[in-house]
This record gives sequence, C-alpha cells and structure tokens, in this order.
Amino acid sequence: VTTDHGYVEGSAPVWEHHGTDLARASGADHARTLAATQQRGALSTLALDPPGHPFGSVVSYVLDDGGHPLMVISTMAEHTRNAAADGRASLMVSEPVAEGADPLASGRVTLLGTLGRVPDGEQAAATAQVVAALPGVGVYAGFSDFACWRLAVTHLRWVGGFGRMSWIGVDDYLGATVDPVLPRAAGILAHMNADHADAGVLLCGRAVARDDLERATMVGADRFGVDYEATAAGGVHHAVRIPFPEPAGGVDDVRRHLVAAVRAVRDPDSHA
Amino acid sequence: VTTDHGYVEGSAPVWEHHGTDLARASGADHARTLAATQQRGALSTLALDPPGHPFGSVVSYVLDDGGHPLMVISTMAEHTRNAAADGRASLMVSEPVAEGADPLASGRVTLLGTLGRVPDGEQAAATAQVVAALPGVGVYAGFSDFACWRLAVTHLRWVGGFGRMSWIGVDDYLGATVDPVLPRAAGILAHMNADHADAGVLLCGRAVARDDLERATMVGADRFGVDYEATAAGGVHHAVRIPFPEPAGGVDDVRRHLVAAVRAVRDPDSHA
Repeated sequence: VTTDHGYVEGSAPVWEHHGTDLARASGADHARTLAATQQRGALSTLALDPPGHPFGSVVSYVLDDGGHPLMVISTMAEHTRNAAADGRASLMVSEPVAEGADPLASGRVTLLGTLGRVPDGEQAAATAQVVAALPGVGVYAGFSDFACWRLAVTHLRWVGGFGRMSWIGVDDYLGATVDPVLPRAAGILAHMNADHADAGVLLCGRAVARDDLERATMVGADRFGVDYEATAAGGVHHAVRIPFPEPAGGVDDVRRHLVAAVRAVRDPDSHA
Repeated sequence: VTTDHGYVEGSAPVWEHHGTDLARASGADHARTLAATQQRGALSTLALDPPGHPFGSVVSYVLDDGGHPLMVISTMAEHTRNAAADGRASLMVSEPVAEGADPLASGRVTLLGTLGRVPDGEQAAATAQVVAALPGVGVYAGFSDFACWRLAVTHLRWVGGFGRMSWIGVDDYLGATVDPVLPRAAGILAHMNADHADAGVLLCGRAVARDDLERATMVGADRFGVDYEATAAGGVHHAVRIPFPEPAGGVDDVRRHLVAAVRAVRDPDSHA
C-alpha cells in the first residue's frame, strides 16, 4: 500500500512543532467560510440515462442561515430532473485559483446531502434570499419553470490544500463560524512574506527560543492567529503558531496584533 | 408541464432567420473546443460511503489525441478510490465567467464516461503528456501513489448558454474540430459591438435586404462565420448569419473577412 506520497523512509524532513495545539479555525470553519464566500459551484447528481451515472453541472447558490445551499433552477435542466427522481447530490466549491497556481494547493469543499424543492410555503422567501445575493437570478426567477431548491447537507469533505483534508460531520458544519480572516489569508500571506519577512524570523525565533532561524514563511492566517514555517541552521524545520490575544475581526485586527507582537519582542519593556 | 420559460402564448417576439442554415461550428465542435482550451474541471464520481452518492471534486486534466481527458491523481484521493470501485464518472468544464456575468449564460460541457487507470505499458507516455501541458503536475507525478487515469468518454451534455443545449454522441465528439475562433469569440463580439456597430447594421441590412435596421448586435463567431441579432423598425427581430468565404484560421482571418465583406457592400464595384 502506498499512501506515503513517495517518501523513502528516513528521508522526510525533520519537523518540530510549536504552539500548533493552540486555538485555530477548524476544518468545519474553513469549509463553512469557503462555502459562504463563493456563489458558484459544481453540482453532482445522478443521471436518469444512463441511470445512476454521476453527472456534473454548474449552479449559482447562496447559503441559507443554517449553511445549506439554496439555488434557483429550472425543471428544464438536467440536474433538476435528476434530483426530482433521486435527491442524492453534492455541491463542490473551490477557492479561486490564481493564474499559474497549482489547483491542488487551493481549498475546496464538497457538501453532500439531499437536493429537494423548497416547500411551497417557503418558496417566496427562499427565492428572495437567493435573488438578494445573486441579482442576475431575478431575471428568470419568475419564469414558471424555475423554483428554489435546497441541498440539505448531511456531511462534507474538506480539502485545505495539498495533503490537508478531512471528513466533517453535519453538526460540526452547522455549528461552524464564517471566519472573517480566512477569505483574506492569501493577501495577508503575500504581503507579510514579501514586505515583512524579518517580522516572521523575529516572532518565530522568540517562539522557539532560537536565534539561528534563517527564514520564516507565513503559511496560514485565521481569526485566532497565524502559522509560520521556519527553517533553522542545520535544516531543522519548525511549524510555529503565533496566537492572537483575542480573535481578530478582520484584516485590520490581524495587522494590529502582529505589530504589537513584533514590538513586544523588539522592546520587551514597552507597554504594547 | 411548464417548459416554456414563462412566455405567455402570443407574447414571444417575432423572429426571422437569414442564413442560419449555413455552415457553423457544431455543438460537438463547441464542446470539444471548450474541453481542449480548459485544464481544470469538476469530476463527479460515485462515493464509497454512502455508496453511490454523487461526489464532486476538482481535477486538472488534458485531452489525449482522441479527446478523452487524462489526469494524474493519487490513490489517497476520494475520487480515485471511488473510480477504482466504480468507474462511472463525468467531468464538467465551464468557460471562465467574467466578474458580474451570469454563469448560466456561459458555455459548459459535461463529458460522461468511464474513468480507469491507464494500462501500465502506456503510463509513462500518458503521464508525460499531462506533465507537458501541466508542469505543476510534474512535482508529484513521480510519487508512488500517483498515476495517470483516463476518462473514456461515451457521451456529452453541452450547454452553449442560456437555453442552448444538447446531448452529443461520442462519435460526433471524436470527429469534432477544435475551432480556432470560438475561444476568442467573446473578445471579437465585444470589439465589434463597441467599435463597429455600423458594420453590423450594414452587413445585416444587405443580408435581409432591408434599409430600416435600427441596430445589429454580434452574438456569435466561429471559423465559418458570425451571427448577428438585428432589429428593424416595427420591432421585428432578425437572426442573421454572415458566412466567411473560407474557414477562418484565427482572429486575424475573421478581421480580414469582415473588412472585405463591409467593403463589398459599401463599394460593390471594388475587387475586395
């Protein structure tokens, strides 16, 4: 059995972990945040002909208050006919992939569940919720062959990037938080690594109590803190979590927390 | 049964068609061109748990010479485990959607077929073909858990935009042409409608033998010609096909053909 991504025993790099058990956005938070910040996904249903063949199509959607996708679709569309006969379905949503970037390194989530027509009594409100988020849908939402359908999520598959993945139960998903920092993480990482590489070496050096770190790259950011990968002389790698004193409400809070943390290392006597 | 997109009988606009039976890129050409010009799609497979539940994931792919998608995937990935147990699968590919545009107006194609591991004797060549088109895949193509798989296409569902759709048989797909103009059509339409609206009125007026056209909008372009929607005084709509004298090999040929066609109307005695 080869589930090792090809590492020969003993050749894998040596990693030491610091603070990686501190609070962080959960896989469910990642999944819920990704689903909440996108509006277009790939719907998989079971075809009528040949029966049971998996069939992919494109849909625009919004999440209802519980995190279940709502979509306004036509009875003329294959996916609607498929779902009317067998509601088993999934919606796959992926982060936008930058030009030239490896799509396997981007986050994506597959919401599995049952796709069914919203009951008549809830049609108007559900449709209005979709149209409010997707004004283009308003053009055809009133056509007699369109109606609002809902994917009642039962479980999820989340992939956070190359090698980071998990199954997520519906209870964890329904209780998850839309993280205000995660959708901006790519920009935060790019900025910090390009313009403030010294801050990473400083913060990680303090965290691991070493003064021989050669570089530190920010690899993650969420409302609870940021993650670095640092390399010391001799090639030992350090996975370092820098926690925030309180959850960040957005990018401005992240900046404020990081500035204060750097100041506290540089000038321990200041009252940052 | 409501399959009418909500038109009340008698309220639909009146359309006259001119040259719309002339040569044009087929649905199979559209589908093959779209699949050939993209490198990322949504794969639908049948989950192991719960068994038979449609499962969507993201893959990078390239078409082999026959038009069947090749992908280098890991045995650790859900879609690979799914396909190993039941090869029924589909790959959905969509045109990039411009910011703010209606995704239902964009083209997409779903290739249905059987996903199977490429035989050992063809692994090296098939993997090399994928890596040549997707250099990022080379990073992990050599890992022992990765291998090249092929979706043997059996039939397709093509949607050319809102209301244009068809099922396509595999023979039509395998015999289809990657159209050199279709991938550039959006740019051609935007340019012609913004900067050369007068040319459209001129060409359509000649085609339908009317001098009361109020406007003409280019709505399609392929290697065989371009499509206009023109409106005459009184509100009659004309769907007009302007054919090229020979298939265009690219955007430069389209420009040359259109310039010559306009010159022939404006100055019938010239030898354009």
